[in-house]
Amino acid sequence: MTDRPVLAINIGGVRLAAAAVDSGGRVSAAVRLATPTGPVVDAEVLWRTVLALIDQVRVRSGERDFAGVGVGCGGPMQWPAGEVSPLHLPAWRNFPLRKRLQEEFPHVPVRVHNDAICVAVGEHWRGAGRGVHNVLGVVVSAGVGGGLILDGRLVNGSSGNAGHLGHVIVDSGGPPCSCGGRGCLEAYVSGPVLVQWAASQGWRIGGTVRELAVDAERGHPVAQAAIRRAGDALGVAIASVTNLCDLDVVALGGDFSTSFPLLFGPLEEAFSRHVWATYARQVRIVPAELGQEAGLVGAAALVLAGDKYWSVD
Amino acid sequence: MTDRPVLAINIGGVRLAAAAVDSGGRVSAAVRLATPTGPVVDAEVLWRTVLALIDQVRVRSGERDFAGVGVGCGGPMQWPAGEVSPLHLPAWRNFPLRKRLQEEFPHVPVRVHNDAICVAVGEHWRGAGRGVHNVLGVVVSAGVGGGLILDGRLVNGSSGNAGHLGHVIVDSGGPPCSCGGRGCLEAYVSGPVLVQWAASQGWRIGGTVRELAVDAERGHPVAQAAIRRAGDALGVAIASVTNLCDLDVVALGGDFSTSFPLLFGPLEEAFSRHVWATYARQVRIVPAELGQEAGLVGAAALVLAGDKYWSVD
Repeated sequence: MTDRPVLAINIGGVRLAAAAVDSGGRVSAAVRLATPTGPVVDAEVLWRTVLALIDQVRVRSGERDFAGVGVGCGGPMQWPAGEVSPLHLPAWRNFPLRKRLQEEFPHVPVRVHNDAICVAVGEHWRGAGRGVHNVLGVVVSAGVGGGLILDGRLVNGSSGNAGHLGHVIVDSGGPPCSCGGRGCLEAYVSGPVLVQWAASQGWRIGGTVRELAVDAERGHPVAQAAIRRAGDALGVAIASVTNLCDLDVVALGGDFSTSFPLLFGPLEEAFSRHVWATYARQVRIVPAELGQEAGLVGAAALVLAGDKYWSVD
Repeated sequence: MTDRPVLAINIGGVRLAAAAVDSGGRVSAAVRLATPTGPVVDAEVLWRTVLALIDQVRVRSGERDFAGVGVGCGGPMQWPAGEVSPLHLPAWRNFPLRKRLQEEFPHVPVRVHNDAICVAVGEHWRGAGRGVHNVLGVVVSAGVGGGLILDGRLVNGSSGNAGHLGHVIVDSGGPPCSCGGRGCLEAYVSGPVLVQWAASQGWRIGGTVRELAVDAERGHPVAQAAIRRAGDALGVAIASVTNLCDLDVVALGGDFSTSFPLLFGPLEEAFSRHVWATYARQVRIVPAELGQEAGLVGAAALVLAGDKYWSVD
């Protein structure tokens, strides 16, 4: 454990964020920025934006020498090489993010992982999953991502994609999924699918998932049915993973947090219908605790608690 | 690594087995016995049978001092305490198997795990999954068990039940499962379910799963349909786990091995329908290689390669 903070960076299609994170998981000097988009944003423009963000954290924190750099970035990526091709950042295709950052910070570890995995790691290290050894972190946004901590260690899988909950199958004969398959969790739960389904049932055409959440809270029956349908599918997928992985905690985060009161009932009902083994019924399904800081805390943990969250180099 | 062999024991509802296993995974002095059943078989009778089996391995191998004892036993059990209550061995309920064996072998490690997990470990250590880091071992018999090796280490989960494939959900609205749920893999694939489904479609009443396999090989259309249905469900469940866990190899073993030529086609078709991510399509689905020795080899590996397969004590 070190006294110097780690520089943590999150790179998403909507927002960039960076901050200093100390060994207690405390976030300071956080800077957030809308992700630049449009035709003039090429790979280097985006990279310079990241550098500018880092400079701001340096200024705000007064820190010159970070103990390391941890990054959560949208997938897919070549992992652990950290060559990123984020689905929602077309400017970067095979962009050597880890290598570039290592050149900026030549004397400390630089580690890059999937953004949803960083959220799961953050929740395990300092959030809703702290103190237990088997955690599924779920992030619902444009898709459904996640991360798996089993036996106290982050599971990476063959190419760093383990924990990706979105294509666990809810119903093998279910609706087509954007992946090419059928009945995946993402075919029921992603933002675009939710608003599309609601529109097909008579809700407004072209509404956003945030508007859907607001309408559901206000009692709009179609909006509520959409959230219930998502909760049901999440419950089934989480049941499968709980039966398979013998979890302690499932931490649920992402864009839907305002809809959680509506989501949790159907989720827990579906879960209870499908989970019967004593070991599996003991899992706790809870909201994530760290909010928008989870990804930064988890990215920092790749460096600050590498024994648990970083098994390669 | 030691030069002395490990004593490996498998305890199942149908058969007991024990052998000496060396650090290369070579099995010698193997002894197999039908599991004693009936009203006179109480906990102590069963225990004395195990002791007799051990004596025979000692005599056949000429070995007095084993380097340790590894045991695969039918579940459920309290793990890692090794208090076993095997579903198909009613004589043992909370039987302190690990403690009893430790009393017999006071100076060496004694380790007990689920029998299907031992098969998966064996296949990773010396079988179809050797040389890769992410393996799902599947055992189809009375139920569908399994074990998960991820990032090169056996995953145990909160209570030692991780890898249990049988209650991964194939179809949330599917047929009822003996667990109380719906549409679990075991609701399509276990031996009893297969013969029951075949009988409902016009195959003989009261046939065994072995007879079903033989009839399917001979071209009986209902028997073949039953195997295809099982293959399809296995393909969906394996697809879910591959998408979630980013596997390298799935090794398939168990009672159905004679039906594998019939099973693999539908399995691979269903898998291909549900797996689209580049990382997931690279998995190899293969028959297990170690046959009935897998469980003994894996039980021995709990001791001989404890750094990978035994993370507790």
